[in-house]
Order: sequence, then structure tokens, then C-alpha cells
Amino acid sequence: MGTDNIGVDNSAAIGEKAPEPRRDVDDAWRARASKVIPGGMYGHIQAEKFPKGYPQFFDKSDGCRVWDVDGYEYIDMMCSWGPMILGYRHPKVEEAYHKELAQRDLAYGPSPLAVELAERYVELLDGADWAVFAKNGGDATALATVVARAATGRKKILKAGSAYHGSTPWYTPVLSGITPEDRANIIFFDYNDIPSLEAAVAEAGDDLAGIIVTPHRHELYLDQVPVDPAFAQRIRSLCDEKSAVMILDDVRAGFRVSIHGSWSPLGIVPDLSTYSKCIANGHALSALVGVESLKEAASSIYATGSFWYASAPMAAGLATLDVMEEMDAVSVMNERGNQFMEGMRKQGAAYGIPVSVTGPPAMPFLRFEDGGQNEQAFIWSGELLRRGVFVHPWHNWFVSTAHTEADIDRALEATDGAFAYLASQL
Amino acid sequence: MGTDNIGVDNSAAIGEKAPEPRRDVDDAWRARASKVIPGGMYGHIQAEKFPKGYPQFFDKSDGCRVWDVDGYEYIDMMCSWGPMILGYRHPKVEEAYHKELAQRDLAYGPSPLAVELAERYVELLDGADWAVFAKNGGDATALATVVARAATGRKKILKAGSAYHGSTPWYTPVLSGITPEDRANIIFFDYNDIPSLEAAVAEAGDDLAGIIVTPHRHELYLDQVPVDPAFAQRIRSLCDEKSAVMILDDVRAGFRVSIHGSWSPLGIVPDLSTYSKCIANGHALSALVGVESLKEAASSIYATGSFWYASAPMAAGLATLDVMEEMDAVSVMNERGNQFMEGMRKQGAAYGIPVSVTGPPAMPFLRFEDGGQNEQAFIWSGELLRRGVFVHPWHNWFVSTAHTEADIDRALEATDGAFAYLASQL
Repeated sequence: MGTDNIGVDNSAAIGEKAPEPRRDVDDAWRARASKVIPGGMYGHIQAEKFPKGYPQFFDKSDGCRVWDVDGYEYIDMMCSWGPMILGYRHPKVEEAYHKELAQRDLAYGPSPLAVELAERYVELLDGADWAVFAKNGGDATALATVVARAATGRKKILKAGSAYHGSTPWYTPVLSGITPEDRANIIFFDYNDIPSLEAAVAEAGDDLAGIIVTPHRHELYLDQVPVDPAFAQRIRSLCDEKSAVMILDDVRAGFRVSIHGSWSPLGIVPDLSTYSKCIANGHALSALVGVESLKEAASSIYATGSFWYASAPMAAGLATLDVMEEMDAVSVMNERGNQFMEGMRKQGAAYGIPVSVTGPPAMPFLRFEDGGQNEQAFIWSGELLRRGVFVHPWHNWFVSTAHTEADIDRALEATDGAFAYLASQL
Repeated sequence: MGTDNIGVDNSAAIGEKAPEPRRDVDDAWRARASKVIPGGMYGHIQAEKFPKGYPQFFDKSDGCRVWDVDGYEYIDMMCSWGPMILGYRHPKVEEAYHKELAQRDLAYGPSPLAVELAERYVELLDGADWAVFAKNGGDATALATVVARAATGRKKILKAGSAYHGSTPWYTPVLSGITPEDRANIIFFDYNDIPSLEAAVAEAGDDLAGIIVTPHRHELYLDQVPVDPAFAQRIRSLCDEKSAVMILDDVRAGFRVSIHGSWSPLGIVPDLSTYSKCIANGHALSALVGVESLKEAASSIYATGSFWYASAPMAAGLATLDVMEEMDAVSVMNERGNQFMEGMRKQGAAYGIPVSVTGPPAMPFLRFEDGGQNEQAFIWSGELLRRGVFVHPWHNWFVSTAHTEADIDRALEATDGAFAYLASQL
């Protein structure tokens, strides 16, 4: 499938729309998909929701680049929605993964790599005296709430309004097929709003099992907002006062803000933390880590899956940490992310288009302040796509260590072209 | 790590206990694991629950064999608890997997292999007009119930008493950390018991969303029991009468009874079927397939995960089907399974030990009729382990196409020795 690679086309004159990509191959696959896959495709990668021209199907990925089935090449500023952090197919990670695949991966039980990776997390991560591994980020967040309930004998879990903690029934943002009972023990608060947090705690009364929170506010369509340190402290102190469990959901931000956990810079230690996405640089792995006082509760629950003990993703997880530590990956991503964010801010100002560029540098997001929810974002990101750069109109983006300074320069040429085109349309 | 491989020791005299394996390396890993992993290990592979001498950690797997970290070699009659069906590292499956890994696996979105695999399932599987892919078997069973609820606008799901459908909160057999609300919409019936099924349907009243059922009874400790065709028909007819959704949970049995779905021989077509375990010969993949009338409901729910679109496991899934079809894998496994089951039945009779050997040939299980729940099973399976064969004392076993006639002969030598030892202890 696919064709010869077609280089990025950034040749449109200033203010002009870049040529529409051919979509023959993608269209053909979409037609086939519509017959055998609900909605043509499901979940967060359903192209139908995106600006016109976004491909649904991909042919290749390498470094910080992806190629669609029609042969167009893109700089991937989504990093496969987070899992890619060192570049697609980082040689050291793949070497470790393949070596393990050739020897075992699955057997009757785990390999010692499960122990080595747990030891590494205990050494590295805040609030980690033990680790349990699974496959989905949603496995880890679900397990966290079960452990919190097992430890406290209570039921209520507090979470921020529209914060995403996985597509499992009690958290999914789409309510089709979800029962009221699935949500009966969830109480909502507003992120960074101490009175609403305290009200939720009061509502839970003596049935407060735990509070789950993302390290910063990274909700769809909105600016990313750092956590207010006083709010984070209040979560910690309320959990301490009520003997409830503080859960930091680091599935999305983990390893991109700090290699020790995203609240490490604040000095706030969670009782449980959840990780997934980039922890094995794209191989399927998630982890729940926790403090010693919750180890017994964690051993009292039943948590398992056929592929949870596969050793190759654990080998990739260890290699990912080796590479990250060796290169100080967070600093590298901060540098590239800041380069990208600063560049876009300057471009927005130069074109007189009010934009808000927010987020930790390794997780940037650009919102059009006057653009409605999607209007300007769709025009701009569609044009960016035609110029060979993948971003997302309403979900935060990701930076990897494989994005070089030259790649970001190149991406900024494309954003400049997209701003010019958008300006011509306003 | 590990030592040189140590061949199976089957030299003990008739009626004698085989030598205890050295456990130096495993013990050392267990000591380390106990510090950083809850319970030393979690889930179904926790060795502490098994007979003395069972290793926790494994060093290698190949064909139908596994090696523990102390270097002992075993014939794996558990097939990694199901996922291995063509032998560990089947060359054609691994070739497809590695080719895909080298090209893409993850990108911004799926590869066309998602479509090809869905098309293949639609062509091959009963009740499959579409497919959705995920990672865990538990993802597929959970999605099935969400689709059933979305389609019907009702809440109640009926399931057989202790039938296992995954470790998610609403199904897990261990209730630590589970709330009553997690189970509020589950109603129980007894497998193969039509009156109890009808009573459960009556209890659900006009809120019956669906009935989930395993293709045969494969519960812990018990004989495996084929489904009574009249019972299966009654499930189908009740779902039709009530416009409820019939869900066949083929996660464990799928592809080992029939390549078209485990109720294909009965001619009963489910509305939804769930698959996982062996469908990619050990690579992490699960699938929900369903009939056309449920496609819209399936597209209305939110189902997604960071690794659900990875293409390498889909390549392995396609290759697994190629190999299975080419060799008529079910027939091969039936032959080997029957060889093993018949052999054990004869041995039990010869030693005067009443045993019940049950299950589809590719999923055998042996229960000691006079042995209490575990007493004789622990002695026998512990001795079998010392003679180089892995079975499980209370969970059904699995056969693969990599088990040759000679391998089964070899396993039967070991079971003979284990029966002789058990007889000497009674």
C-alpha cells in the first residue's frame, strides 16, 4: 500500500492555501473500513472529526515523522498522541525490545524484567514503593481507584469535571451505553478551585476513598493550565486529614514534565500514580505505582490480564528510562517545546491573530482566542497539515526528543504559512 | 540470569518422587520482587498459590516449551494461559510482526491492517459484520456490555454465576475494592440451567440489555462441561423475544474449538462475540465483533486506548489466521488434545485413581474425583512439574499446534510418573 514518499509541500505563496493532498488511497481504505468498522474507525483517532484532508490511515513512522497511505510525509507533533517520546523506533529501545522478543516475551509467568522495572520505578518515581504493570492507561487508573477503595473500605472517588482518565465506563466522556451506577461513586470538583474541592470532600463525607487528579489541567479545547500549588497542597492535606488516597494520573504527562513524576517539582508526593503512553516509547505498557502503606491493599485486589506479564514491553520500558536519563530527555524536550511555543506566539502576534499557547513545553497547545471552539483552529491545522505538520485542533500536542531544532524550525515555517493563510481568510 | 538449560528429569523410579528442582535463582528474584511488587506478584500467575516448587520467573520460551530462571525446561501445557496457539515465536507470525514493527506499528492513526483484519473476521467469524480492536480480553467483554446497553437503552446484563469475563470491577472474582454499584446491573444464572436463566430474564424485566455466556462451562476447580444445545438455543430465543443482545465470550475458547466461533458447530449465531488471548499468537490484541444491527450502537460509544491501533499485533493476527487455516489448526489440536486426554484417562484407571478428564480437546482439564478441591491435584501437578510438564491444578489447560505427538507422548510419560507417585501417597 502507499506510494513513493512525497516530500512536504511548503511552496505555496504567502497567504495562499497549500495544495490539497491527493486522498485516493486513504479514501479507498476509508470506503472499505466503513463496511467493517463501526463509524469507519472508532475512538480518538477517528479522522472524520478532524479538518478536511486529514488522513485516516498511515503507512510508516520513523523518528519524529509519519507518512500517510497516500505517501505524504509529516512532522508528527502529536507523537502518536503521547506514546512516542524518543522518536519512532529508537534504536536502543528497539534493540532491547527485539532481544526480549527473541528470548521470551510471554511464558507461563513473568520474566525477571518485571522486578527490574519495578525496582527502577521505586528508585526513580515519587511515591513509588511498589509497581503493578498492565496494558492500558485506563487499566492503571481503574486499578488505582480499586486500590483506594480496598485500602479505605470507602467508595467515593473525586475527580475534576471533564478531566480524562480513560475510556472505561466510569470515566468515559461519552455516555452512550453507560449506566448511572457506573458513575454513582464519582463526585466532581473544578480543577484549581479549592472551594469546589472542599465541597466535594464534604459531599463524600465519611465515604471518601480518594481523589484523582491530572498534574495540570489538560482538557479538550481549553488552555492548558498549570496546577495552582495551593490547590495541589490542599488535595494532599485533605487526603491526609481524611485518610483518603491521593492519586496522580500521570498517564498523559508522565516523563514529559519530570522523570520523577509531574508533581515532583512541587514536592508533593502522591499515594498512587498512574503511568502509560510513553513509558515504553510506544510499546503497550501501563503502570500503577504506590506508597508502602497501600501495598497490602494493592495485593488484596485481583488485577490481571493475559498480556500484562509480557516481558518485551518491560525491556522497552527499561531502555526508555536509560535513554531518557542519559540524554536528560526532559531538558531536551523543554528546549524544543519552548522553541516551538515561542515561535508560534511571535507568529500569532505578527499576523495580528490572538492566540494562547499553553502547556508544559513537551505538551504544547495553541488555542485561537477569537476563533470559537473550532473555526480558526480547523482552518489553521488543516493548512498546517497541507504543509506537512500534524497537530490537533482541540487536544494538546506532544514533543519528543527526536524533534531536532531543525525539525522545529521546519514546523515553524509551516505554522507561519498556516497563520498567513488563516489571516487571509479572516 | 538463568543457567544452562537443564533437561527434564524423568529418571525417578516408579512410585518415587522426582528430585526437587533447585530454586536458587527463582528464590532470589522472589525476594527482590516481594519488596517492590504487591504480593510478590499479582494476578493469575502468582506462584505462591501453586504447589511447592512452581517457579515464579521464566527465562525463555520456544515452541511448546518454557524454561524457568533456574534453567529447567518444561512442556507448557498452559500455552501461557491461552495466548500461545501455534507455538512460541511461530516463524510466520513473527515475520509478519517484525516486518510491521520495522515499518510503523504506531503512527498518528491506524494502518490499513486494521481494515484487513476486520474484513478477515467478517469473512470468517459467525455473527461478525464489523470488528473493533483493543488490548485486553476484559476490554472486549466490557465494550460488549456497553454496546448492548447503548443498543437497547437498558441496563441489566445476565451472566453465569462464577463465569470469568475479565478482571474489571464488574466481573472480577475478588471483591476487594469493588463497590455494590459496580455489580448493580448484573444478574446471575446457572450455566446449562434453563429455569434459572428464565428466572434471571424475568428478574431483569423490561431492563434486559443482554446475556453474556462462555461457549462451554470452564470454571475454576470444576469439570469443563459442554453447553447443552437446548440451553444455548434458549439464550438465543430469549434474546430474540426480548430484543436483548446475545454476547458469546470467546476470549478463552476462541479459535480452539472452531475457527468460526465456538458455537459455530451448534449453528447458533451470537449478536456480539469477544476474542483475545490466542488471536495474535501471544501478541497483545483483543476484538469485539458484532452483527450489522449493532453497528450503529457500536459507533455511538467511546472506545479507545493509546495502543489499540498499533499495527504489529494486527499483522500477527492476520498471520495467525493464515497459519491456522493452512494447517487446519483446530484438527491438529483436537488430535493432540485427544491423545493427551485419552492417555491420562487410561493412566488414572490403571492406577485406580478416579479422574475426570474434560473439556474440548484443545482445552483439557483433569480433576481428581476423590481428591478434595486441591489435595490430590497439588501432589500430582507438583510431581508433574518436577518431571518437566506444566499444568495447572485448578484452571483448564491449553494445547497448541506446536505440541507434537512426541511431545504429548513425553508429557504422558511424566503424567504416568506423577500418577505412580500420587498412588504411593494415597
